[in-house]
Amino acid sequence: MCLIGMRYIEPPHIILRKGLTAGIEYPKLAEHMSEYMAKTLFYTSLLYLTTTDHKSAVAKYCGNVELCRHTARVVFSDPYKMSEYNRWTTPYLDADAEAVREDNILKLEVAELKSKFCERAQALIHGDLHTSSVMVTTDSTQVIDPEFAFYGPMGFDTGAFIGNLILAYFAQDGHADKGPDRKLYKEWILKTISDTWNLFYEKFTALWDKHKDGPGEAYLPAIYNNPEVRVLIKQKYMEELFHDTLGFGAAKMIRRIVGVAHVEDFESIKEASKRAECERKALNFAKTLLKERKKFHNISEVVSAIKDVDK
Amino acid sequence: MCLIGMRYIEPPHIILRKGLTAGIEYPKLAEHMSEYMAKTLFYTSLLYLTTTDHKSAVAKYCGNVELCRHTARVVFSDPYKMSEYNRWTTPYLDADAEAVREDNILKLEVAELKSKFCERAQALIHGDLHTSSVMVTTDSTQVIDPEFAFYGPMGFDTGAFIGNLILAYFAQDGHADKGPDRKLYKEWILKTISDTWNLFYEKFTALWDKHKDGPGEAYLPAIYNNPEVRVLIKQKYMEELFHDTLGFGAAKMIRRIVGVAHVEDFESIKEASKRAECERKALNFAKTLLKERKKFHNISEVVSAIKDVDK
Repeated sequence: MCLIGMRYIEPPHIILRKGLTAGIEYPKLAEHMSEYMAKTLFYTSLLYLTTTDHKSAVAKYCGNVELCRHTARVVFSDPYKMSEYNRWTTPYLDADAEAVREDNILKLEVAELKSKFCERAQALIHGDLHTSSVMVTTDSTQVIDPEFAFYGPMGFDTGAFIGNLILAYFAQDGHADKGPDRKLYKEWILKTISDTWNLFYEKFTALWDKHKDGPGEAYLPAIYNNPEVRVLIKQKYMEELFHDTLGFGAAKMIRRIVGVAHVEDFESIKEASKRAECERKALNFAKTLLKERKKFHNISEVVSAIKDVDK
Repeated sequence: MCLIGMRYIEPPHIILRKGLTAGIEYPKLAEHMSEYMAKTLFYTSLLYLTTTDHKSAVAKYCGNVELCRHTARVVFSDPYKMSEYNRWTTPYLDADAEAVREDNILKLEVAELKSKFCERAQALIHGDLHTSSVMVTTDSTQVIDPEFAFYGPMGFDTGAFIGNLILAYFAQDGHADKGPDRKLYKEWILKTISDTWNLFYEKFTALWDKHKDGPGEAYLPAIYNNPEVRVLIKQKYMEELFHDTLGFGAAKMIRRIVGVAHVEDFESIKEASKRAECERKALNFAKTLLKERKKFHNISEVVSAIKDVDK
């Protein structure tokens, strides 16, 4: 599996989003992506770096101003205001788009996420880890397009990937006439969402255990020196990361439905009313997820909530 | 009043900490310090800067690695582990120092503050804003020693100043035999703590109102476009800043009692048992404040809690 870097991706790799739209299962996707995210995020954070090395690395990526500014605009701003660039499946979603622009609580929560995106240098993140930044075969997974990379909140990467899997899930009903059994395929997507987070959690905390005696300086072993406190810090860290994942994931979903750039998952549904129906379910779920993210304790609860919306 | 910069401070200015130890009232202190903090923090944050200018400024100060590393060590690490550099008023506080090193909940909360200190580039902070970094006469207030300045959490400055005022308060009983009526002076310190925060709140939010139409990009006027949402974002922002202030303030207090460098407020109390008694009250209050900071809603509640400890 390829980490961030420039290389030629060999055929028959295809863009993951195309595969998800076509209903193709990728049995190793969750394993590969969780490994990629656990390693890139862990090794560039203060869990592995000294404060000196971390600050040097932050400085190195501060130059990526324009792409960060672009992301901040399209993800955290455009969908929440009138903009000539915004579009949605009209007229079906006109009222839905307006509701997003008038939802004070949603805007309040989005502001918290934007502030984390702009201010929190937690790890070197890919910065654009949606399902068109991943190329796949059934055996191989390659992450591409690293040009947005900068020091930001880890949840922006984990959220981008999981949020885009949720978009793919809600688009399936629009593709029921093509390819394999979409009911089974939706189950596979939900399992992949669940596996991605659970494997990420497992791999990330395993790296933390492996390197608990340094060189990372976030939690010095001389201070966090008993099993009880180590359990507490891990729970607290991973809980915040989980909530960030859900928040950023939801924000990335919303912007693909009522913001500037849309995604093939929905765009390829030809019939507008059908597309709107799929998009509305995804949008409503994303709004709830963003506003209520801190009430979720684990990924199973998220999967159950997706199923509830889809009943 | 002087903002961060190099200049000659004219006599008869003295170090504020010396004035507080001698029991001298500074009627303009709260007004001046709240003004200094409101202006430096507001104008260097995303409330006033574009995301582009903010990121450029963050990069500019990322070079200040060694002093940040030193601060992280002495404030968030040393007091919570065995270290040959730590000291305290022994034997009186031996058990208290040990209790700090064994308090898992305290360590968990300190980790959250350390992570904010190392990762969150909220504003250009002074970085060492205790009462020996301020020179005063009854009319004039000058902030000195800007060499620790970097992009960090605002609460680290507001907390440093208020935390050191609380230290000065708890030291007063050790100086009851010298100078003016210390009972009255303690009331003045409490009033100064309260005025400092309340005036800071007022001035900071007034700057925000004044510049609500830009150039700051944290809350775009096209999105945060109704009075209700503007009230909500301000409440949320200021509440977090208040809790950060209390947390960082408490951490700065703890490190001055059981950590490496101590302060003249207590050091000048000659009788060790008397000094230890004052320090223990301050330490116990700081531990509570750090662990329970999110339960406080305003500075009056903090002042009441200080009085309760001192009964």
